[in-house]
Amino acid sequence: MPETLPVHPVGYVRRRGEESVLEISSEFAEALLGVEQQEHLWVLFWMHRLSPEERRRLRAHPMGDRSRPQRGVFALHSPFRPNPIGMTRVRLLSREGNRLHVEGLDALDGSPIIDIKSG
Amino acid sequence: MPETLPVHPVGYVRRRGEESVLEISSEFAEALLGVEQQEHLWVLFWMHRLSPEERRRLRAHPMGDRSRPQRGVFALHSPFRPNPIGMTRVRLLSREGNRLHVEGLDALDGSPIIDIKSG
Repeated sequence: MPETLPVHPVGYVRRRGEESVLEISSEFAEALLGVEQQEHLWVLFWMHRLSPEERRRLRAHPMGDRSRPQRGVFALHSPFRPNPIGMTRVRLLSREGNRLHVEGLDALDGSPIIDIKSG
Repeated sequence: MPETLPVHPVGYVRRRGEESVLEISSEFAEALLGVEQQEHLWVLFWMHRLSPEERRRLRAHPMGDRSRPQRGVFALHSPFRPNPIGMTRVRLLSREGNRLHVEGLDALDGSPIIDIKSG
């Protein structure tokens, strides 16, 4: 399909064990105003380690369980999908300036952050 | 920020009154395998009518209510955000081939669909 929609990272994920830090670029710091009042947030991130082959997979076994029949990726939460955008609801632990400490994010270290929404 | 992540539409939203139709491109039809077993789905879509000015707004009044103090867009579900990606949980009414009839989608007619996930 010819149309391309350009997405620009607003920051990057840093893994710290069970915790993740959302490092938001200073140009978007204003967008964090009042975020510390949220208990949960939705994080949209780019799954930057997915290979082109993984992005072309349109079906997968649910939860990777080969005993279950394959389903289309639009019927799953599988990481394989044409646009490698992950979406996870996280718990906000604390904020230090442009850095949000969160729990429950299944994003790899270095993943570009696309968006944060109240959750 | 220089990095650009290219997103490609997997289909388009067609509004039919209260109902919306997700028209998925035939090249991604396989990704719909088994989707009719889902009662709810998450739809990620591109808010294509947002102006560049609206995308630059980093704070807004919650629910557009001017009596409430402004907050950053990352603490809100406001449509204003640097990457104009909407995320809505919808009810799946029916499937006809590559077309999913859904209820509850707050996307304008013609919005590019970026992803569908089980919900």
